[in-house]
Amino acid sequence: MTKDVVREQGHVPRKDYVDPPPAPLLDMAELRLWSFYRALIAEFVATMLFLYVTVATVIGHKKLNAVDQCDGVGILGIAWSFGGMIFILVYCTAGISGGHINPAVTMGLFLARKVSLIRAVAYMVAQCLGAISGVGLVKAFMKSHYNGLGGGANFVMHGYNKGTGLGAEIIGTFVLVYTVFSATDPKRSARDSHVPVLAPLPIGFAVFMVHLATIPITGTGINPARSLGAAVIYNNKQIWDDQWIFWVGPFVGASAAAIYHQYILRAAAIKALGSFRSNPTN
Amino acid sequence: MTKDVVREQGHVPRKDYVDPPPAPLLDMAELRLWSFYRALIAEFVATMLFLYVTVATVIGHKKLNAVDQCDGVGILGIAWSFGGMIFILVYCTAGISGGHINPAVTMGLFLARKVSLIRAVAYMVAQCLGAISGVGLVKAFMKSHYNGLGGGANFVMHGYNKGTGLGAEIIGTFVLVYTVFSATDPKRSARDSHVPVLAPLPIGFAVFMVHLATIPITGTGINPARSLGAAVIYNNKQIWDDQWIFWVGPFVGASAAAIYHQYILRAAAIKALGSFRSNPTN
Amino acid sequence: MTKDVVREQGHVPRKDYVDPPPAPLLDMAELRLWSFYRALIAEFVATMLFLYVTVATVIGHKKLNAVDQCDGVGILGIAWSFGGMIFILVYCTAGISGGHINPAVTMGLFLARKVSLIRAVAYMVAQCLGAISGVGLVKAFMKSHYNGLGGGANFVMHGYNKGTGLGAEIIGTFVLVYTVFSATDPKRSARDSHVPVLAPLPIGFAVFMVHLATIPITGTGINPARSLGAAVIYNNKQIWDDQWIFWVGPFVGASAAAIYHQYILRAAAIKALGSFRSNPTN
Amino acid sequence: MTKDVVREQGHVPRKDYVDPPPAPLLDMAELRLWSFYRALIAEFVATMLFLYVTVATVIGHKKLNAVDQCDGVGILGIAWSFGGMIFILVYCTAGISGGHINPAVTMGLFLARKVSLIRAVAYMVAQCLGAISGVGLVKAFMKSHYNGLGGGANFVMHGYNKGTGLGAEIIGTFVLVYTVFSATDPKRSARDSHVPVLAPLPIGFAVFMVHLATIPITGTGINPARSLGAAVIYNNKQIWDDQWIFWVGPFVGASAAAIYHQYILRAAAIKALGSFRSNPTN
Repeated sequence: MTKDVVREQGHVPRKDYVDPPPAPLLDMAELRLWSFYRALIAEFVATMLFLYVTVATVIGHKKLNAVDQCDGVGILGIAWSFGGMIFILVYCTAGISGGHINPAVTMGLFLARKVSLIRAVAYMVAQCLGAISGVGLVKAFMKSHYNGLGGGANFVMHGYNKGTGLGAEIIGTFVLVYTVFSATDPKRSARDSHVPVLAPLPIGFAVFMVHLATIPITGTGINPARSLGAAVIYNNKQIWDDQWIFWVGPFVGASAAAIYHQYILRAAAIKALGSFRSNPTN
Repeated sequence: MTKDVVREQGHVPRKDYVDPPPAPLLDMAELRLWSFYRALIAEFVATMLFLYVTVATVIGHKKLNAVDQCDGVGILGIAWSFGGMIFILVYCTAGISGGHINPAVTMGLFLARKVSLIRAVAYMVAQCLGAISGVGLVKAFMKSHYNGLGGGANFVMHGYNKGTGLGAEIIGTFVLVYTVFSATDPKRSARDSHVPVLAPLPIGFAVFMVHLATIPITGTGINPARSLGAAVIYNNKQIWDDQWIFWVGPFVGASAAAIYHQYILRAAAIKALGSFRSNPTN
Repeated sequence: MTKDVVREQGHVPRKDYVDPPPAPLLDMAELRLWSFYRALIAEFVATMLFLYVTVATVIGHKKLNAVDQCDGVGILGIAWSFGGMIFILVYCTAGISGGHINPAVTMGLFLARKVSLIRAVAYMVAQCLGAISGVGLVKAFMKSHYNGLGGGANFVMHGYNKGTGLGAEIIGTFVLVYTVFSATDPKRSARDSHVPVLAPLPIGFAVFMVHLATIPITGTGINPARSLGAAVIYNNKQIWDDQWIFWVGPFVGASAAAIYHQYILRAAAIKALGSFRSNPTN
Repeated sequence: MTKDVVREQGHVPRKDYVDPPPAPLLDMAELRLWSFYRALIAEFVATMLFLYVTVATVIGHKKLNAVDQCDGVGILGIAWSFGGMIFILVYCTAGISGGHINPAVTMGLFLARKVSLIRAVAYMVAQCLGAISGVGLVKAFMKSHYNGLGGGANFVMHGYNKGTGLGAEIIGTFVLVYTVFSATDPKRSARDSHVPVLAPLPIGFAVFMVHLATIPITGTGINPARSLGAAVIYNNKQIWDDQWIFWVGPFVGASAAAIYHQYILRAAAIKALGSFRSNPTN
């Protein structure tokens, strides 16, 4: 925990890591790569499995809970389901597509110039189609329960206003995307060669934590594909009325996290603050 | 999360990993190796411990729950038991037998030519005998409760039809075997020398997640040895009537995961898609 | 688990790690570094997110629990929230500020001369301001529930006296700070080059464990910023009356852990015990 | 998961790891090392913290549960407490004492000649004294609740006979000590230089899993120091009558795990089975 302090006392002669160049905005060459389409397939399949498992967990919990108040996996089990699925799916797809599984994550990485515009848009489309398919599978498997038990859809719960719902989505997505940036920082990998980074685990935990806090407020979106998938399949007016919250909130939160990471934590701000003497490699 | 993207922008001069040659279908030489029999013993013992701990957890939960609705470890605790045991048993036996502990995993790895036919069949027999022994231990320890509380057996729950049960088993096993392939990909180890792979943890989490989602549907099999072991010891007509679901489902799901990993994610498909320019090392 | 034993049988020719020199008490040069202010921002933001997520989880749980005894994430979910947030926030900020997020941790590291006095005081101020902001966000989002459901504040629960509360805070903080020292020991990193240290995970688990044990006693502070933040926003006389316990307890516990680690485990005591023959590198 | 298989197909020219020589039975030189006494202090403190946190969790759960059936951390929370504390304490003390914290683990490692007889006996004494102190702290903090709510002591629960209790302790300790041996095998570290071993995590999970399964049977001992500590402080006739089960069971289970690991998994058996051709390095 005191690495930073120690580092400043020693002398670090030069940058020991390489920042990749920013991704181009439009990279038509990508469209000729099989790996681009493979990444889209991987995002589609991962988001489908994510929604299938998590929404089946939600509906199964509500079904058992309706019979016996203490049966079911509980809200704690539902939070584990969302967080744990993100852990394993990021783990499985990180090497194929980067493991976004969430349009807000893709947006944050696009703003930080880690993915091109073409890739960002294509990922978001694949994620949304995957999410719709995943929730569709749950409805196909448990139709009557699905419709009767809320369909796993996000909306602002009774007792909270839309501003609170939007705020909860913004901060929740900030926590997630901030963790994603911290876990994938190239500076980190170079520093931590002996303190390795099992990145998918903290990313999954970030999702778990946010669900513990905001399931009682909005059911927790922080992933526009997840919210859209459930809205399309459940198709209820109240859900559609609140849908904008689950796009604006996550995109604002992801943008804030990208700005915080790039301009504060990565010390890009230093260039605007010439009055400070600073260690440029840090 | 953006590793793939970065990789494409740089230039990777040659393959930095070695694919092991496919395992032979019939490898009689294996039968003369002590390590072959040691692997069978390890699979037998691991599957026995798996079923003993998990079924004891199920029966203990139901016993306490019958007295006081809120006592017992809950379905969440049962899901942890299955997932956590797979985590520690894969961890303990990976170096001895590969840590399958599940005929569906063995089947998937056989289809990907990671194990020979002889080894695959012998593992499945050892796993089934281990599972029967493990459930037998639970019955010996808590006989009256065991018989009265469902015996930890898998069947399609009231309110779902057999098609749903089969579908839930297929997708659940797909999630597990897809994680197994992702965790054991030789390409991964080479890439991630500084982002190391604690493979048993995501594999255990995959089992945990699937249990959260499908305990209310089938009790969750995704492991034919587990379902057979409980069926043999509980020995009830309804259980035997549904048993085929817990063999067909997992084998179909594991096969689909093997095909998805080998033909889509490992880019073997590229050979059939000559019109794409692609980076052959990726 | 037998590393120490093995080590003594072999011969370790010389120290294979470097102890950083102790941090100066007053290091005015720090004040001219941008990285110093960046670290303060990171501590402020991390402590704000910590309190926002955890207190929202507490209030959300109590709100659901009031309607239906079995709904809500439970005390187990609350303990996960505190422990899991520390896991991800230490993970995210370790490379920027050292990832303290807790004045008691800062105090322990100051006593061990890992941070200067100036840095220690500045961190504590940033943590307290962050905590107040985080609880303030919760109150802004869920005002009526916040005030009616205890505000996430720490106090000694009915049935325990203040001495017990103080003791629980001392030992709880000892467990946390002892884990922090163990996880960040430079000797450890050198030894464990192949048994790497995912330090934030055990630190997060230490927080989780202490919450399981002492939520029924004091609600669990072990972090003066956390206790102060809730006290300032909830602003209730009983809470202020007990506030000293949540400063004295954590600071005493952290100091005891620093002494235990530096004088017993790091074998500094050997210098005072000339009658023992010892391996000075161990 | 197929590492073993792959390994056999390649050719491993020589042993790539070093087995430490067996520890001497009586090593008087140890008694002159400060590190020996430091290890005893570390075992004492770790076992004290283990019992303090876990028994406080048990009593706190029962106190809340008595008022409101659904409050309290639940048996799941209690199981997490035991498993999680072992995770962090093994993590913190592994480099000092080997991180046993359990006479059964010490016994297993003594049988495998990893520790000398003197060290084994001294560790067990330190662990028992630590456990008594830890439970004593809980009683001092919450006296009336402690005595009225079972004192965290182990006994065979109503509805099970002593043979079942003994069997549950034997198999439970086998699972734990088998995981300890797997996690600390020197062969493993050599092989897994890129698949690193975060040993304390699976060891903690083994404890968690066994508690989920056997809390309803015996409250789960699998650690004679833990059972003795609670018995001494609670001091009740039924508890003392059952105490032998929590010494005989763990010692038999640990011995069985040591034999299984040394004679089956480490292939020592090969020497007695000359009729098999085998790869001696495997």
